[in-house]
Amino acid sequence: MEPTALAFLAAGIGAGIVAIGASVGIGRLAASAMEGSARQPEAAGDIRTSMIIAAALIEGVALFGLVICFLLAIK
Amino acid sequence: MEPTALAFLAAGIGAGIVAIGASVGIGRLAASAMEGSARQPEAAGDIRTSMIIAAALIEGVALFGLVICFLLAIK
Amino acid sequence: MEPTALAFLAAGIGAGIVAIGASVGIGRLAASAMEGSARQPEAAGDIRTSMIIAAALIEGVALFGLVICFLLAIK
Amino acid sequence: MEPTALAFLAAGIGAGIVAIGASVGIGRLAASAMEGSARQPEAAGDIRTSMIIAAALIEGVALFGLVICFLLAIK
Amino acid sequence: MEPTALAFLAAGIGAGIVAIGASVGIGRLAASAMEGSARQPEAAGDIRTSMIIAAALIEGVALFGLVICFLLAIK
Repeated sequence: MEPTALAFLAAGIGAGIVAIGASVGIGRLAASAMEGSARQPEAAGDIRTSMIIAAALIEGVALFGLVICFLLAIK
Repeated sequence: MEPTALAFLAAGIGAGIVAIGASVGIGRLAASAMEGSARQPEAAGDIRTSMIIAAALIEGVALFGLVICFLLAIK
Repeated sequence: MEPTALAFLAAGIGAGIVAIGASVGIGRLAASAMEGSARQPEAAGDIRTSMIIAAALIEGVALFGLVICFLLAIK
Repeated sequence: MEPTALAFLAAGIGAGIVAIGASVGIGRLAASAMEGSARQPEAAGDIRTSMIIAAALIEGVALFGLVICFLLAIK
Repeated sequence: MEPTALAFLAAGIGAGIVAIGASVGIGRLAASAMEGSARQPEAAGDIRTSMIIAAALIEGVALFGLVICFLLAIK
């Protein structure tokens, strides 16, 4: 079996796992943001800013992980 | 076994895992958005904006992951 | 099987696991930050500062882990 | 199979496991810090100091673990 | 398969498991410390001292475990 075979396998599975991680993480914090905005509508602006900051941190990790999978996929 | 065989396998499995991740994540935050809008109808606009922002972040990760699976599928 | 084959496999799977870890961790603490901001809107600034510090610590570990996976991917 | 093959595998998987551990640990303590800051805003400074100390201890273990994985990755 | 191959594998996996153990442990006790400080802000100093002592004990075990993994990694 050639190395690229496992690289392709890892690219697909890895991209999937990265997406699960990022989605569950952003989904969880955003869910709390929604509930918080509903409970304190006047704090919606503050909560949204915090939500975007935290989601962007997760997004950064996820995109870097996907770049690694991308490098594996184009081998 | 040729490398492309595993690439095809990974494309299918990976696309599925990406879709699971994005769906669970967006589903969870959207569910909270619905409940929040129902509890505080006057905050529905704010909540919808936050929901679209968070869902778009998940969507971005998921689409990049699917592009990787796409690259594997057309090998 | 050549060493690089397992290196590629490890890069993809490793990147996925790193992303799951970081996302779940940041997602959890950010979720609590959202709920806290909603309960005490006047403490939103303090909470956001603490959230960014803690998320940055997780981000640091995750990025270092992804660099290791990146090194494996470009072998 | 050459020894370096398993070293590469261990580097990727190990980096992922380290990141999960550190992220879940920091995520959990930081979540409690957020909730604590929201419940007692006047104690936010004390809580943040304690949070950074505890998170730094986890960070130290995680970075040492990642260095081991790094050594394995560059073999 | 040469013995060093399994040594490398053990170093990576072992470092990951050590980090999970230490992180979950420190994360749990620190989480309780945060909650305790929030409930009794005037006891924050005492709680922090106890937290550092307990976390340092976990840190000691974890670092010794990581040194063992380090010795395996540099074989």
